[in-house]
Amino acid sequence: MEIKIERAKTLKQKPDQNNLGFGKYFTDHMFMIDWDQDQGWHDARIVPYGPIPMDPATMVLHYAQETFEGLKAYRNPNGDILLFRPEMNARRMINSNKRICMAELPEEMFVEAVEAIVKYEQDWIPTAPNTSLYIRPVTFATEAGVGVHPAKSYKFVIILSPVGNYYPEGVNPVKIWVEDEFVRAVKGGTGFTKCGGNYAASIAAQVKAEQNGYTQVLWLDGVHRKYVEEVGTMNVMFLINDTVVTAALEGSVLPGVTRDSIIHILKDWGYKVEERDLSIDELMEAGRTGALKEAWGTGTAAVISPIGELCYKGEKVTINGFETGELTQKLYDTLTGIQWGRLEDKYHWTKLVK
Amino acid sequence: MEIKIERAKTLKQKPDQNNLGFGKYFTDHMFMIDWDQDQGWHDARIVPYGPIPMDPATMVLHYAQETFEGLKAYRNPNGDILLFRPEMNARRMINSNKRICMAELPEEMFVEAVEAIVKYEQDWIPTAPNTSLYIRPVTFATEAGVGVHPAKSYKFVIILSPVGNYYPEGVNPVKIWVEDEFVRAVKGGTGFTKCGGNYAASIAAQVKAEQNGYTQVLWLDGVHRKYVEEVGTMNVMFLINDTVVTAALEGSVLPGVTRDSIIHILKDWGYKVEERDLSIDELMEAGRTGALKEAWGTGTAAVISPIGELCYKGEKVTINGFETGELTQKLYDTLTGIQWGRLEDKYHWTKLVK
Repeated sequence: MEIKIERAKTLKQKPDQNNLGFGKYFTDHMFMIDWDQDQGWHDARIVPYGPIPMDPATMVLHYAQETFEGLKAYRNPNGDILLFRPEMNARRMINSNKRICMAELPEEMFVEAVEAIVKYEQDWIPTAPNTSLYIRPVTFATEAGVGVHPAKSYKFVIILSPVGNYYPEGVNPVKIWVEDEFVRAVKGGTGFTKCGGNYAASIAAQVKAEQNGYTQVLWLDGVHRKYVEEVGTMNVMFLINDTVVTAALEGSVLPGVTRDSIIHILKDWGYKVEERDLSIDELMEAGRTGALKEAWGTGTAAVISPIGELCYKGEKVTINGFETGELTQKLYDTLTGIQWGRLEDKYHWTKLVK
Repeated sequence: MEIKIERAKTLKQKPDQNNLGFGKYFTDHMFMIDWDQDQGWHDARIVPYGPIPMDPATMVLHYAQETFEGLKAYRNPNGDILLFRPEMNARRMINSNKRICMAELPEEMFVEAVEAIVKYEQDWIPTAPNTSLYIRPVTFATEAGVGVHPAKSYKFVIILSPVGNYYPEGVNPVKIWVEDEFVRAVKGGTGFTKCGGNYAASIAAQVKAEQNGYTQVLWLDGVHRKYVEEVGTMNVMFLINDTVVTAALEGSVLPGVTRDSIIHILKDWGYKVEERDLSIDELMEAGRTGALKEAWGTGTAAVISPIGELCYKGEKVTINGFETGELTQKLYDTLTGIQWGRLEDKYHWTKLVK
C-alpha cells in the first residue's frame, strides 16, 4: 500500500505523561483511506490531525453506518514499539463491517495502516508506567443522501491518543449495577460488532448505574433477561469455586481480544474455563454462598477490571471482601507484562513495529 | 427564538419536478442550532447548505449518538404551505433523545425551526402532483473524545429535499420478505426511537430481501421471533376479515405519525382496530385461508405502501390478488388528500406556514 504523507506545519506540545487520562489528547497526524464502488480502497494517506468536512446529509450522521476498533501501542523496556494482536482487531472490524453492510478493509491493509501511523507518530508513545498509545480505527459511511441502503462510499480513519490508566485510581474493584430494564443486544442483532449503535444504546443504563452510585452495568441477555453477557463495554468473567465462567460468543457478546487472550492464559495455567449461559440467579446465589471467589471485566482500555460488588434488584453481594482477587491480579500482571514487553511473549501475541 | 440568517451567495438550479426521486437534491440553506452544557440551545441560524467540519474524534462518528426525524411540507391547491402534525415529530425526537441521553430540543423550538427554514426555502416546495418538500431534522453529538458517555455538546440541523413518490412506480403492491435471522429491535432496546443505530442494524436484512427479489423486510420481534413488528422502515397493518391489526407500541415498534393518523381515520370510519401481538403463524394462516384481505405499510416517506405478497420460510401468500386493496387505496387517498390540502382537514392535523 502506498501511503502519501502530508506533514503538519506545527506540532502540538506533548501532554504530561503522568496526567494523560483516557482519550483526552490526540496526536499530530491521522491515517485516512477512502473507498468507493469504482475505485475500492484508494488514496491512503497520513495527514495532519484535523476536522473532516462533512455534508449534513452524510449517511453516518443519520443511519449510523459506523464501526470502530480499539488497540494500543506499547513501549517495551528497550524502547521498542509493540502492538498486541492487531490482526484480531482487523478481523473483528471486517466482521463488524459485514454485519453493517460496509466496505471491509482487508486484514493486511488494516495492520499496515496501524503500523504506519504508529511509527510516524512514535514520539507520542508515552513511556511512564501503565501508559500507552491508544489506537482508534473507525470506518464510516460518507455518501450524502437520505435513503436507507448500504452507502456507496466510506472512509477508514485511524486517530491516536496517548493514555494512562483507564480508571484514574488504577486496578481497584468497581461496583457493578445489574441492569434489568435496558437491553444492550439480542441474538440476530449487532451485539457481536463494534458498531456505533451498540454504544449509543448503552449510555442510558450507564447513566442510571452512575446515578445509583455504581461504576458500570452488568448486561443481561435481551431474550430471557436472565443470562449474564457483558459488563459496561467489557467482557466479564467469574471465578466460581475453581472454574472460570464467561458468556459464550453466540451473537450478542463482543468477541474481545482481551477475553480471548485471558481464556488462553487461564487454560494454559490449567484452569477450567466454561463459556456458557450463566444466569443472574446462579451468579447471585454463588455470591451469597461464597462460591463466587473473584470477578473481573476484560477489555483493551482497562485490560482487567476487578469487580467488588454486584447489585441486582436491590440485593448486593460483595466479592472477595471488595479486594482485588489473587487470580485477577495475576492475570492483570501477566497480560500487561506481555503487552509492555516485560514478560516473555510465549504466545507470540506481540508484534514489533519496525 | 432569534434566528440569524446568512444567505447563500449563489442559489442552485431547481431540479425537474417530474423527476425528483427521493432525497437526491438538497436546498440552498439549512437550519442549525447548537447545545452545550453552559449555554443550552444557542446560536439558531439559517446558513448556506454545506459541509460541517467535524473532528475525527467527534462522538457521533464512534458511538452513534444521533437521532433524526422525517416530515414533509406540502403545497395546497391555493399555493399555501402546509405541514402535517409537526408537533408529533418534535415529541418523538424528544423521546428518542431521552433514550440516547442526548440534549432535547423543546417542542416549540423544533416546530418554529421547521417553519422558519421551510418558509425561507419555500421556492423549493414542488407543486407537481405527489411531490413535496421532505424535511429532515437530525440531532448529533459533537463532542470530540473517545470515552463512552453522554456527549457534552450537540448540533440540531434541518436539511430539506424536494421529493417525488418514494417508490418511482407509485402506489403499487410490494413483495415482502419475512425476516427470521436478523432482528431489528427488542424491548429494553431502542426500537421506539429514530436513532441511527436502528437503521444501521436493519440494512443487512434489507439487502438480503432484495437479493431474494423482495422490496422490503417484515420484522419479527426479537424475543420470540414470532410477532410481527414493522415492515422495512414503516409500521405495518393487516386487514384480517373486517378488523385492522397492527403491532402495539410496547418499546420495540416506532410510534409512527402516519400509523397514528391512519388508526384515527379507521376508527372514525367505524373500523375495528386491534393493536396487539400478531404472530406470523396467525398471519400466514390468514393469508392461506383468504381471511387476510389487505396489508399495507405506513410511513412519512411512502405514506401508504400496499403489500401484495409475503414470503416466510419459503412459503408465499398473495394478498388481494397482488392488487392494491380498496381500503388501502381509500386510506391513501384520504390521508394524502388531507396532507396536500385537497380534502377537508376535519382532524385539524395540518398547520399552515405563514
